Amino acid sequence: MQTHEDWMHLAWQLAKSTAGQTAPNPMVGACVVKDGRLVGLGSHLQAGTAHAEVHALNMAQEKAQGSTLYVTLEPCNHYGRTPPCTEKIITSGVKRVVVGSLDPDPLVAGKGIQRLQEAGIEVIQPVYEEACIRLNEAYFHHRHTGYPFVTLKTAMTLDGKIATHVGDSQWITNEKSRQKVHQLRHQHDAILVGVGTVLADNPRLTARLEVGGIQPIRVVVDSHLRTPIDSNITDVTEAKTWIFTTDAKDQQKEQELIAKGVKVISTGAGSQVDLEVVLQTLGDHGILSLLVEGGGEVNASFLHGNHVQKVIAFIAPKLLGGRNSPTSIEGENPEKMKESKELKDITIERFGDDLCIIGYI
Amino acid sequence: MQTHEDWMHLAWQLAKSTAGQTAPNPMVGACVVKDGRLVGLGSHLQAGTAHAEVHALNMAQEKAQGSTLYVTLEPCNHYGRTPPCTEKIITSGVKRVVVGSLDPDPLVAGKGIQRLQEAGIEVIQPVYEEACIRLNEAYFHHRHTGYPFVTLKTAMTLDGKIATHVGDSQWITNEKSRQKVHQLRHQHDAILVGVGTVLADNPRLTARLEVGGIQPIRVVVDSHLRTPIDSNITDVTEAKTWIFTTDAKDQQKEQELIAKGVKVISTGAGSQVDLEVVLQTLGDHGILSLLVEGGGEVNASFLHGNHVQKVIAFIAPKLLGGRNSPTSIEGENPEKMKESKELKDITIERFGDDLCIIGYI
Repeated sequence: MQTHEDWMHLAWQLAKSTAGQTAPNPMVGACVVKDGRLVGLGSHLQAGTAHAEVHALNMAQEKAQGSTLYVTLEPCNHYGRTPPCTEKIITSGVKRVVVGSLDPDPLVAGKGIQRLQEAGIEVIQPVYEEACIRLNEAYFHHRHTGYPFVTLKTAMTLDGKIATHVGDSQWITNEKSRQKVHQLRHQHDAILVGVGTVLADNPRLTARLEVGGIQPIRVVVDSHLRTPIDSNITDVTEAKTWIFTTDAKDQQKEQELIAKGVKVISTGAGSQVDLEVVLQTLGDHGILSLLVEGGGEVNASFLHGNHVQKVIAFIAPKLLGGRNSPTSIEGENPEKMKESKELKDITIERFGDDLCIIGYI
Repeated sequence: MQTHEDWMHLAWQLAKSTAGQTAPNPMVGACVVKDGRLVGLGSHLQAGTAHAEVHALNMAQEKAQGSTLYVTLEPCNHYGRTPPCTEKIITSGVKRVVVGSLDPDPLVAGKGIQRLQEAGIEVIQPVYEEACIRLNEAYFHHRHTGYPFVTLKTAMTLDGKIATHVGDSQWITNEKSRQKVHQLRHQHDAILVGVGTVLADNPRLTARLEVGGIQPIRVVVDSHLRTPIDSNITDVTEAKTWIFTTDAKDQQKEQELIAKGVKVISTGAGSQVDLEVVLQTLGDHGILSLLVEGGGEVNASFLHGNHVQKVIAFIAPKLLGGRNSPTSIEGENPEKMKESKELKDITIERFGDDLCIIGYI
């Protein structure tokens, strides 16, 4: 390790390893370095438990005296569910703090750094900032907007189909891609589908990872509560299920769903579920990240409402055909190709022969 | 250069540099090596002119005596439009011939190698065979089947659309991708579209390369001769145009098209153009390679008729949407995802942010 960036990269890796388990808190990693040697490291593991800096300083013990602390996100200076990290840093005798990025949360937002400097600690920031912000893109988005960060995930054939005209979609992508989807689900706080997907596929929408993992909340957009009472998604033993509906809902069905442990939320009197209300509600409940795995109509509603931040598109190298085979984004018909929404910061991953294109809107 | 493969790779590069200009002949490259030094090289430039071996041996002159000749395809042993290469090799005093792949043409097919061996020349083969065959995949396919090698080229958005519902498709892909398409056109002997594309886009379908290049024959599938008499494609000053139709064609339109220099060919009494007849006719005229740039229905007809050998799919990272926006393969609706056709030997190229996926059926 030669540079501040190198040590911050280590802290970043520690943060990244907690993906899917820290909401509504951000992922944070920290390491303590004294005389060029690593003397402590830590990650924030779960909301309500110790912050990354505290774990790292506890590990370092008296070696923290005169050390440099690397932390991916600005240390907090307020009493939340744990005491302020700034005080722990000061009393540990840390000489210098290197910060990856400022914390956008108005409760922190520069106050942490100010407190450290007032206590005579040297602060260097930002270091490795882009990666530190990207890592917590959901957290930053949530703190800026109050809404979860929305990722649209699609899977299609090389001719753009997501199913046959009768809804068969098993399987478009290969085993490796599908395993990646389970990992993506685990890394998100909630997954959303439309009732059409529930009716067509009866999905469980759980993250099925070999090594286990936290289950995201399953969210269904269902204006009239057509979700069958005995569908896989109404079984809440593995994961929670929230159904967003309208005042036009079937009230008896609502009672049956509630009796099964499903949370039912009406977004109001409109004929369609109001996505603004869905996102506001999820954000208010500390959901930082939402993975939308809808059919073409749900996906189009999110896209045209400007509610999508990121797209993860799996492409399998096969050709299905069919003039009525559905595609990943349907909705109203644009007239001009120029009306399409361009993605930027494109990255590409390969899973066997499948491709995965990731970009931001 | 250390190995036979290294020298054959050079010969292969010489062959590849003639893409688009040798039909109905294959691309062939050759080099002559004596005492580890290159003493001659050549490519077959155009049907009816000297073969690669002859150019290379002419360059080597008396240094050919006792040399090794590397040639990507088996030398011919028959009088075609030029004398047999085997005799030139024998009289030049070549000691050893290294061959990339056998020639599938029944006029050659092992007889070239046999003649060389009978004359006491050592023959090593095959060397670098896979690349040498892949280079001439169209030639091999044509000699095996009598049909041109068909490549389906598509360009779509990340949600699988090839145009808006009113047919606007300018532009899906970026400038670099479109330049690559002009190069692809140049490398094919013919390009095919349906009359729907002619009516929607009025395309020129020429290869517009900065440095010029041979124009492929433009082929239109047009059952009732709906091609407008004043469309860009009926202007044959830049490139030839062949229209395949049926006996149900508009006979007055046929006369007008012929008067403009367009070739009109009926595939028979059926209500639709018979693609078998199209391919047989093109094959009979020495067309080795056909690039299909159809709309969804033409593409589906080729795919479901098992007439596609290779797929080149451009994907632009943008989302269009629209439940009536067309896709690259339409046609009849399959019931099961398992009915899709898988591609193999996948390669991926990037043109800026656009992706290009290439595979074989």
